[in-house]
Amino acid sequence: MAVSTVYTVQSLNSTFSISKPTKTQLGFNQKQLVFYKKTTTTRRTTTEITCSTGDTVVIGLAADSGCGKSTFMRRLTSVFGGAAEPPKGGNPDSNTLISDTTTVICLDDYHSLDRTGRKEKGVTALDPRANNFDLMYEQPPKIFVIEGLHPMYDARVRELLDFSIYLDISNEVKFAWKIQRDMAERGHSLESIKASIEARKPDFDAYIDPQKQYADAVIEVLPTQLIPDDNEGKVLRVRLIMKEGVKYFNPVYLFDEGSTISWIPCGRKLTCSYPGIKFTYGPESYFGHEVSVLEMDGQFDRLDELIYVESHLSNISTKFYGEVTQQLLKHADFPGSNNGTGLFQTIVGLKIRDLFEQIVASRTAAPLQATKA
Amino acid sequence: MAVSTVYTVQSLNSTFSISKPTKTQLGFNQKQLVFYKKTTTTRRTTTEITCSTGDTVVIGLAADSGCGKSTFMRRLTSVFGGAAEPPKGGNPDSNTLISDTTTVICLDDYHSLDRTGRKEKGVTALDPRANNFDLMYEQPPKIFVIEGLHPMYDARVRELLDFSIYLDISNEVKFAWKIQRDMAERGHSLESIKASIEARKPDFDAYIDPQKQYADAVIEVLPTQLIPDDNEGKVLRVRLIMKEGVKYFNPVYLFDEGSTISWIPCGRKLTCSYPGIKFTYGPESYFGHEVSVLEMDGQFDRLDELIYVESHLSNISTKFYGEVTQQLLKHADFPGSNNGTGLFQTIVGLKIRDLFEQIVASRTAAPLQATKA
Repeated sequence: MAVSTVYTVQSLNSTFSISKPTKTQLGFNQKQLVFYKKTTTTRRTTTEITCSTGDTVVIGLAADSGCGKSTFMRRLTSVFGGAAEPPKGGNPDSNTLISDTTTVICLDDYHSLDRTGRKEKGVTALDPRANNFDLMYEQPPKIFVIEGLHPMYDARVRELLDFSIYLDISNEVKFAWKIQRDMAERGHSLESIKASIEARKPDFDAYIDPQKQYADAVIEVLPTQLIPDDNEGKVLRVRLIMKEGVKYFNPVYLFDEGSTISWIPCGRKLTCSYPGIKFTYGPESYFGHEVSVLEMDGQFDRLDELIYVESHLSNISTKFYGEVTQQLLKHADFPGSNNGTGLFQTIVGLKIRDLFEQIVASRTAAPLQATKA
Repeated sequence: MAVSTVYTVQSLNSTFSISKPTKTQLGFNQKQLVFYKKTTTTRRTTTEITCSTGDTVVIGLAADSGCGKSTFMRRLTSVFGGAAEPPKGGNPDSNTLISDTTTVICLDDYHSLDRTGRKEKGVTALDPRANNFDLMYEQPPKIFVIEGLHPMYDARVRELLDFSIYLDISNEVKFAWKIQRDMAERGHSLESIKASIEARKPDFDAYIDPQKQYADAVIEVLPTQLIPDDNEGKVLRVRLIMKEGVKYFNPVYLFDEGSTISWIPCGRKLTCSYPGIKFTYGPESYFGHEVSVLEMDGQFDRLDELIYVESHLSNISTKFYGEVTQQLLKHADFPGSNNGTGLFQTIVGLKIRDLFEQIVASRTAAPLQATKA
């Protein structure tokens, strides 16, 4: 199978590339994933491993560090079934995950090994992972996720993604989270946290943030509007921004598709504790393209709140009643399982499963049609 | 059939009374309508006409003059079927209407004949109506509506109403309407209109307005909030306030019963001209009792907007899809057929039909159960 133009994701010890779709002999488009594994750094020899991706769907997930990418990936692999684990022999805290159905390649993970100066060790440590890559090609994964700081940075790589997601954590929330983690848990000073955020800001604004305009779905995390002047960052307002007109992706809606709705489910049938829960839904414009936005402000305190909300959302691509609730309960210990981050990450996972099934079905149908023609 | 305590509606040439429910020999409650017709004013003799109202439902409709009671009554009789007409031989502009199924007694109508000084003529003019009353008792009406300024003023009369409605037109809108009618159409000066409103205000506040706290449904008409600083009174925000816990009356809702919703139907599926249409729905407290409020701001410009909105409302007690739209189109020339006043008047009409059918069914079932016991 011919490999046409090959684009390389930058600065990895083990780089990989995705080729543009090529026509197979059966007449349908097929993507190629190509991995270049540096076996030694001195001899500069590379081993090229190519795999056919006829039934692989490639997903990009971009976000700043500490923004919940790994939680999202664990929710996604859970939706697809099978226990996701870091590759055997690698960093046990790695965001790189392999399950029966999903492989997550964490760009940052590779990158950090490169930068810590543990180059020699890093190469050695990477070997088992490369072995797992080999294994992966023998049993091609169904979902191939490229996550990290830059998966949508390069236009040529972007073009090869079947679906892309950006986690957009507002400065206020990012600051509150960093304070929680770096000050409360790691003993850093408030000044050093502020300085670290400020230092990262120019590069973040230049390279990371602009990727969101290309994303098919953006999960935006903001401070609540239910509590006046809240800056604790505990109650969150989360917006799921869904691009219209994306093939195999039908945005979620609330009650009436395409209209503008606000909904406070807490009332006669459902009681909620302060400050309650508020949803809004409607069409908007985002970087010049049409999107639908579903927003949740507040958090779930009880199971009945969660199932009540799930039952009123449409197009969430569940396979049975209560699947979103089941997923959130299964991973109740994950951060955000009681608010819009967990809810929307889970829903995006279900939408990706749906997208995957539609793509596979269309790829299966295409050669049959070619045969008939 | 025994008539127990009889309450008289005040100051009418032909007064009528409604008795408290009494037990019939079959064991079920039955109301009695009793009319006292003054045959002459000098001899002070009265003729008592009594009719059994086993299948009659009594509705009260209160509002200030010029607030759309007659339009509402025409919509109501239309819902019940049959052409409603003023009693033969009476005032052709009378609000008193008789159709096959509905009789509307307009208190103001009687009252005005009393006050115009045409006393002698009035008595004569009333005679054919009394004749029609006689006829009415032979063929008892299904819906008996008492409308006017004071139908819910007297607690004892209130108690006998099966359902009560108050039309609450805000001062701003009332003023805009009066200007339209009295200045544009009748050539009155702005000063005289203002003076006339001011002069009526103390009595209105003391006797008419307080009745709304007793109403099962209130239609509140306010200036639009869609156009900033609008005072034209052409685009209206109309609120249908529905008391909870009223037997045989299930409030209308939008999408999710008992929660708080706002809905702008104009969007991807439905386009509307400026300033658009906005609905809100939710539980509220009204004079200390629990109510559900459905609000419509804006107006319909096209048929598809009307049917789209109808299809998204629940509990509107239609007998077929599009019945509300059909009713509004049928009477497109009535004031308010393109806004919330017409929509909610029609819906209240359908709710009264539903209430009537439930009451009749329960009265029919009651003696059967008594026989079985």
